[in-house]
Amino acid sequence: MRQIARSLFSRVENLPIISPHGHVDAAVIEQNLAFPDPAALLVTPDHYVTRLIHTSGVPLDQLGLGSSAAGSRRIWHEFCKAWPLFEGTASGYWIRQEFEHVFGIREEPAVETADQTYDAISAKLAEPGFRPRELFKEFNIEVLATTDDPLDSLDSHAALAADGAFAARVLPTFRPDAYLNIGHPQWQTNVERLLGAVPGSSGYAGYLAALAERRRYFVERGAVSADHGVHTPATLKLDDAEAGRIFERARAGKASAEDREVFEAHMLYQMARMSVEDGLVMTIHPGSYRNHHDPTFEAFGPDAGHDIPFAVNYTEAIRPLLQDFGTAKDFHLVLFTLDETVFSRELAPLAGFYPSVYVGAPWWFLDAPDAMLRFRSAVTETAGFSRSSGFIDDTRAFCSIPARHDTSRRIESAFLARLVAEHRISEERAHELILDIVDSSPRRVFKL
Amino acid sequence: MRQIARSLFSRVENLPIISPHGHVDAAVIEQNLAFPDPAALLVTPDHYVTRLIHTSGVPLDQLGLGSSAAGSRRIWHEFCKAWPLFEGTASGYWIRQEFEHVFGIREEPAVETADQTYDAISAKLAEPGFRPRELFKEFNIEVLATTDDPLDSLDSHAALAADGAFAARVLPTFRPDAYLNIGHPQWQTNVERLLGAVPGSSGYAGYLAALAERRRYFVERGAVSADHGVHTPATLKLDDAEAGRIFERARAGKASAEDREVFEAHMLYQMARMSVEDGLVMTIHPGSYRNHHDPTFEAFGPDAGHDIPFAVNYTEAIRPLLQDFGTAKDFHLVLFTLDETVFSRELAPLAGFYPSVYVGAPWWFLDAPDAMLRFRSAVTETAGFSRSSGFIDDTRAFCSIPARHDTSRRIESAFLARLVAEHRISEERAHELILDIVDSSPRRVFKL
Amino acid sequence: MRQIARSLFSRVENLPIISPHGHVDAAVIEQNLAFPDPAALLVTPDHYVTRLIHTSGVPLDQLGLGSSAAGSRRIWHEFCKAWPLFEGTASGYWIRQEFEHVFGIREEPAVETADQTYDAISAKLAEPGFRPRELFKEFNIEVLATTDDPLDSLDSHAALAADGAFAARVLPTFRPDAYLNIGHPQWQTNVERLLGAVPGSSGYAGYLAALAERRRYFVERGAVSADHGVHTPATLKLDDAEAGRIFERARAGKASAEDREVFEAHMLYQMARMSVEDGLVMTIHPGSYRNHHDPTFEAFGPDAGHDIPFAVNYTEAIRPLLQDFGTAKDFHLVLFTLDETVFSRELAPLAGFYPSVYVGAPWWFLDAPDAMLRFRSAVTETAGFSRSSGFIDDTRAFCSIPARHDTSRRIESAFLARLVAEHRISEERAHELILDIVDSSPRRVFKL
Repeated sequence: MRQIARSLFSRVENLPIISPHGHVDAAVIEQNLAFPDPAALLVTPDHYVTRLIHTSGVPLDQLGLGSSAAGSRRIWHEFCKAWPLFEGTASGYWIRQEFEHVFGIREEPAVETADQTYDAISAKLAEPGFRPRELFKEFNIEVLATTDDPLDSLDSHAALAADGAFAARVLPTFRPDAYLNIGHPQWQTNVERLLGAVPGSSGYAGYLAALAERRRYFVERGAVSADHGVHTPATLKLDDAEAGRIFERARAGKASAEDREVFEAHMLYQMARMSVEDGLVMTIHPGSYRNHHDPTFEAFGPDAGHDIPFAVNYTEAIRPLLQDFGTAKDFHLVLFTLDETVFSRELAPLAGFYPSVYVGAPWWFLDAPDAMLRFRSAVTETAGFSRSSGFIDDTRAFCSIPARHDTSRRIESAFLARLVAEHRISEERAHELILDIVDSSPRRVFKL
Repeated sequence: MRQIARSLFSRVENLPIISPHGHVDAAVIEQNLAFPDPAALLVTPDHYVTRLIHTSGVPLDQLGLGSSAAGSRRIWHEFCKAWPLFEGTASGYWIRQEFEHVFGIREEPAVETADQTYDAISAKLAEPGFRPRELFKEFNIEVLATTDDPLDSLDSHAALAADGAFAARVLPTFRPDAYLNIGHPQWQTNVERLLGAVPGSSGYAGYLAALAERRRYFVERGAVSADHGVHTPATLKLDDAEAGRIFERARAGKASAEDREVFEAHMLYQMARMSVEDGLVMTIHPGSYRNHHDPTFEAFGPDAGHDIPFAVNYTEAIRPLLQDFGTAKDFHLVLFTLDETVFSRELAPLAGFYPSVYVGAPWWFLDAPDAMLRFRSAVTETAGFSRSSGFIDDTRAFCSIPARHDTSRRIESAFLARLVAEHRISEERAHELILDIVDSSPRRVFKL
Repeated sequence: MRQIARSLFSRVENLPIISPHGHVDAAVIEQNLAFPDPAALLVTPDHYVTRLIHTSGVPLDQLGLGSSAAGSRRIWHEFCKAWPLFEGTASGYWIRQEFEHVFGIREEPAVETADQTYDAISAKLAEPGFRPRELFKEFNIEVLATTDDPLDSLDSHAALAADGAFAARVLPTFRPDAYLNIGHPQWQTNVERLLGAVPGSSGYAGYLAALAERRRYFVERGAVSADHGVHTPATLKLDDAEAGRIFERARAGKASAEDREVFEAHMLYQMARMSVEDGLVMTIHPGSYRNHHDPTFEAFGPDAGHDIPFAVNYTEAIRPLLQDFGTAKDFHLVLFTLDETVFSRELAPLAGFYPSVYVGAPWWFLDAPDAMLRFRSAVTETAGFSRSSGFIDDTRAFCSIPARHDTSRRIESAFLARLVAEHRISEERAHELILDIVDSSPRRVFKL
């Protein structure tokens, strides 16, 4: 089985990386500044890492979060001390690979060698070959999608596209949550800014038109998808008058809790309608209780490691949207989940009927070897291989991108190898499938 | 491990097929007409197959559904073209086996050989040996239960039973959903027909009596079970007066949504009561959102591949029924689920206490190798092997029956082989268990 | 892989048993009386065993439950007859080990040898070496926690602690459910007894003070944890006035269903507050529908094998508690579940951020080889190894303790061996981890 897996893996090991959804900042690539130091690169901005160190009792400000004055070397020491916590975790696998493959350090992080590894990585980061664009080439990234505010100028993307010396594609992604969800603290401000940015738009109709206009702007600048981070995947079609009344109540700061729920569901439906029109692939990421611990949120803001998943139901929630757009021509809808139970129960059956629906790759906490294998086992028997999204790294940790794709390719190879060994698919067909999964699927699903 | 599995499998490979729940039409067996053509046999009527082809953008009417004029050969071409979608799916495994074992075709479906395979299968279907009764014998089916309307005359069953040349048992199953669920579009019509069919019955009491009378009719004609397809497994005991009032509101077309819910739960309870009295094994199939996509339902009717599972809770829902009948003598209640989470959490503990409760075999989307192994792993440590139903093929695709039972027997052998290899059961005991699982369990649970 | 597993297992096979949560009665150890007979030791008091025999149609009174007159030898015969039902179950594995390792009987229970095994075990039980204290030493138990009523005198614990000849620690555990949950049949009586037992306490404030006082009493006598068996893990902070009003309504027998729910959630919050103050580790066991079958409960009381799990949601429910105490210094909160879906979805993410939260070991129905492996697979990639509780046997079946810990040690070794074989951790590190999991974790988490 391992031998079959190795043979399959060798077919895709060196293929270019296609990353159709992630959180790297385009400006970092464009400006091509050296990364400041090991902690600022590998620890502080990665909430997968800081959260686990935090469990051992280290306050987040000692890891550089918030208005912290913690020195970079000090943070690195904390990280090295906490390294044993990472055994068996996805982050542990990635960091070990980054150490070895990006920085050429073969030993693992350890408190005894913290200064050495800090200095070694610092020295590398100062080299020209470790600038973002050089790493980009080194990592063999062909396509990288970023995640962007609807009013972003996308100037960095334009500059990169115009740069003849930079061959890869860095694509923006339209992410309108803070303009759709009335409950978002910036919603009112954002809506006024949006209406102000698109000449002639006013009221609810203008709001929809302005969103469509900004989507058009993104499409022009290469966007292929619109991403939606929602509490639940509820969808709903309100009539215009009703939607308009809620919109105005919300602008006046008078929306009720029910208004918020209903309007978010309605706007998710509207985004599907616009995707059918403008062709942007629609991706939905529900089911995370954001900022679970108020005191931590107040001190450090969002993305501090305490977004906690909860049970999700897609079947009923997504139905109003699929009624009207589920079989719409060229509409692509990628559904993600942090609740593994929906893979076999809901997502595989939905993707096994609706031509628009694709099962999103195992995401976030599920982006790890065992969880990936559970995912394939859960969806394949119902939906086959053609209905999943291809790997999504979803990362803001730039240097972890190769490790993540590498892990995914190994696991897909291992899964196929098992089916070959069990005489469930032929080895020849497995070789076609691994290519399709790693390379063709993301291109096809994300219209690249 | 594989060697142990092979040895276990060899014990049961050639045992007769016991199929206590499925959807083959008794008239097909009785009339023994030749199957018309490959598409009408293997594609159009199998919503497992058409749904996956549909995901690739082929409209269902091009697959023969509805009032389609699509030619059989054209449909077969679509199927062959879509064949790669089936890699790794349960349907893919079955069809490959049918090709080889039923039709002697060793190559897989492929667009290049579509005409050849079409012609080859057509030729076989014209042979006398490929008539339903001859295949029935060839497949070594000892018992086949059908699923029937409560007012069905069961004439085909009677004719088969009376036919000395046909040795197998074809048993009817009482399936009263459309007479119990007020929300069913035919409920009013059905109830009037039911009351009309049973002389002297009127009102709610007459309705119950008429249902009991039809059950008696089924029992007389060999039925061993009554099957219930419900949205949720909610059960409830209303008093007669209250139930009667809802019944009359519903007959007058004035039932509320709450009436519908309460009455369906009450009637599920009543069906259990009748099962205790007349001995019909009660099977419950909940948790599927039927006809998820309205436009498809309007065009093609039910069973078109868009029934989508959702989360189910048995523990509280089934409690009113189990309070009164859970320990009733000789009552058998088989609980199915499409929501795998209830296997370890609810069904195994329920079946591990109540003498009446059996865990239904993994059903529908879960009727596939990995899902079957997850099922055994989830229930065995709590409930052992004696509390599950035995394999249920639940199919309307007659030619897939041997492949499905074959898969199940292989997987049960593989599961037992793992336990032997891990020194958790003895090999000797595994040989007894495989016989019990494949042969004795379904006979015992379904009172055959 | 097996070779690596064996090597890891050999490291921990003979380590002393740490059992920080269970249901053995301290008086049994203190009084050190001979166990009466095989059925009274291995069958009647173990609801894991009686429930499975019950499924085969044997009434519970024939197994010694309730005011049964069933003779011990007769019960033993029923058990031996039912033995095949236990193949593949957790109880089956334990009993086989107990037969062999505790009583030196190598054959399995069988109806043909029922008298022989009954006599052989009876003879052993009469020997001095089979008294509880001798077995305690034989089993190499270093710490055993019991579960105790808040008003228990803990005299047996004190006597054992004072006994110089008894080296092990037998620790009480504070279990206040019947004093917190208004819905408990004894709540009113218990509250009056509690207020009576602590001089000067009255009203709601006195009730809280009395609970704190009893906790202090437990801490003084060696308790390290407080255990909470709740329907759901809902938590809530009421203001004192509101809590006091509900408390008085409940004392007067006038609490509503909503009062009960709200007050239980509030008291779970209060218990966390007290744990932060007095240092008792807080353990929560939710999600079991207790006494599912009323007629069985009425005849035989609680713990008769019909507690049935249901779906649990921790993320929202536990949030009010974690808001205020999730990062409190030295607070330890161990969250158990019978609903496996929360392992990867909720518990691992919670334990992967909050320094206070630990994932409880797979419990009750999940305390078996496959379920344990699913647990490790579900939590490790998100939370690593440091955030789980260590093994908990949770048993009232004293003689099964070594078998349970042995099983757990084997399974942990097998899981680590797989990660080593997949090059995910080093063999050296696996040897450290197995020691940590088996020995250091429970000491650290339970502050031993």
